[in-house]
Amino acid sequence: MNKIPNKEDILNTAQRIDNHIHRTPVLTSQSLNKLFNTQLFFKCENFQKTGSFKIRGASNAVLSIPEEKLMAGVGTHSSGNFAQALARSAQIAGIPAYIVMPETAPEVKVNAVKGYGGIVTFCKPTLQAREDTLKKIIKETGATEVHPYDNYDIISGQATATLELLDEINDIDTILCPVGGGGLISGTALSAYYFGNNIRVTGCEPKGADDAYRSLIKGYIVPSINPDTIADGLLTSLGKRNFPVIKEYVNNIVTVSEKAIIESMRLIYERMKIVIEPSSAVPLAAILENKADIEGKKTGIIISGGNLDLKKIRF
Amino acid sequence: MNKIPNKEDILNTAQRIDNHIHRTPVLTSQSLNKLFNTQLFFKCENFQKTGSFKIRGASNAVLSIPEEKLMAGVGTHSSGNFAQALARSAQIAGIPAYIVMPETAPEVKVNAVKGYGGIVTFCKPTLQAREDTLKKIIKETGATEVHPYDNYDIISGQATATLELLDEINDIDTILCPVGGGGLISGTALSAYYFGNNIRVTGCEPKGADDAYRSLIKGYIVPSINPDTIADGLLTSLGKRNFPVIKEYVNNIVTVSEKAIIESMRLIYERMKIVIEPSSAVPLAAILENKADIEGKKTGIIISGGNLDLKKIRF
Repeated sequence: MNKIPNKEDILNTAQRIDNHIHRTPVLTSQSLNKLFNTQLFFKCENFQKTGSFKIRGASNAVLSIPEEKLMAGVGTHSSGNFAQALARSAQIAGIPAYIVMPETAPEVKVNAVKGYGGIVTFCKPTLQAREDTLKKIIKETGATEVHPYDNYDIISGQATATLELLDEINDIDTILCPVGGGGLISGTALSAYYFGNNIRVTGCEPKGADDAYRSLIKGYIVPSINPDTIADGLLTSLGKRNFPVIKEYVNNIVTVSEKAIIESMRLIYERMKIVIEPSSAVPLAAILENKADIEGKKTGIIISGGNLDLKKIRF
Repeated sequence: MNKIPNKEDILNTAQRIDNHIHRTPVLTSQSLNKLFNTQLFFKCENFQKTGSFKIRGASNAVLSIPEEKLMAGVGTHSSGNFAQALARSAQIAGIPAYIVMPETAPEVKVNAVKGYGGIVTFCKPTLQAREDTLKKIIKETGATEVHPYDNYDIISGQATATLELLDEINDIDTILCPVGGGGLISGTALSAYYFGNNIRVTGCEPKGADDAYRSLIKGYIVPSINPDTIADGLLTSLGKRNFPVIKEYVNNIVTVSEKAIIESMRLIYERMKIVIEPSSAVPLAAILENKADIEGKKTGIIISGGNLDLKKIRF
């Protein structure tokens, strides 16, 4: 896809990836609804294959590669959920996945990628080293590079989470979604626009990684420099294909404290009995800090994933 | 009910409590199935109202009280999940719930009971003090005492979890279930017998609280003295109404190490993305330690609840 996905594109994507993903449940919590005087609908991508929404975009990207290029495989640099998602999508397609990871990546993440058959190449932990190493591999193998979020096939794939949410729950008023590189939020905002009825979309960011917030104010992409947050899925800078979508279709971006992220994570574990990663707690943190106008409304929340190092959990 | 519930009793119970409980999901995990070469079906009572299966029995007990006794309320001594469950069932019925708790009970549990409108009376942390205090309250108020597990209405209520499991999944070969006082396991075994086809039922106990294991060997109830396990729902001694049911309908009881309980808990959090309490990890611990014959079988596991002090989580 070489343009912002339209309604048809997203519907086609949903059909294309249907056999490759779970239709994840939409969960509710009477206790949280009461606490915040709203109706919350959690789209639980922590229950998604590979533990995050990333498999939606990754599947779509792999399934969209022209046949003559397919067998050479795919490549990306990622130390997070996208690496696992791309490795699994490639494994299902029977093609190689070349994953460049920083040598500092946690063993648990490296093993997860290898568990899906990913071919891991380590590099120095700098963006430059990651890009150079990937470039070299792409050149040698002829693999198709798949960017984790700055890619329209990816955006269209991530959009299907909200498509499913709106298919299941009528009359959603507002959707809260975490913002990292912008793949999920741009897909969310597009689906809200195409398939919803005047839905307000709010991006939620940690204060320690507020590049999207600052980018929207400035009107151009402000890179994420030395971000510092427990929400390790939200450290990246906005992609150049994501920013225009965010500018046009996202209503506002709010930022939250680390304290609120941890407290929200605890609330979700305690009240909903589900395991989520810190990034997924950022939307509820916005509610906790009164940054989102949700009282009396039907509020969708995208729970982006459930992958974290459990050994590090400290509530 | 003054006898072991029969098939009709359990079906009637299911109808009676239908509006008062969730029909909890049965979850599966491809990753755990692969790991253990079996098909696991987790009946997830951690998603149940009040966070555990206890609401099934508590609802049934409250709904079974004769009208002329109902308004005087109910009473029990419990510091665990049953206290919350009885308080909530009483709250729904609009009657008082007198809950005797040891003065050492964690604040989070006391607050949960009070949150459901329970009237808490504290006592010294001994069984004698608990029983004496409850007796006094029952005498003063005319409330109906509801024992957490040594009670046929409770057993019949807990049996409905397995009734639902078997309604949803055909041809289950074996069911693994934690054993504490024996309310859940006796209900599980009765439903497996009435509604299943030759299902093997295995009770799973921590080595540090193996009174049911020892009771089955001896042929009489061996009390649980100074039990020591992280599985804090399984500390109690078997009830005198539960033991005969276990003797007749449970095939065997196996014991597991603390290490296996913690490792299983981690596996369930990591692979299934659900929050469970330590007691609920005991059946998977039996699989982990090769104590259960489940290879190639369709295996039901009762996840008893998801209430725990998250601040204490250390994987």
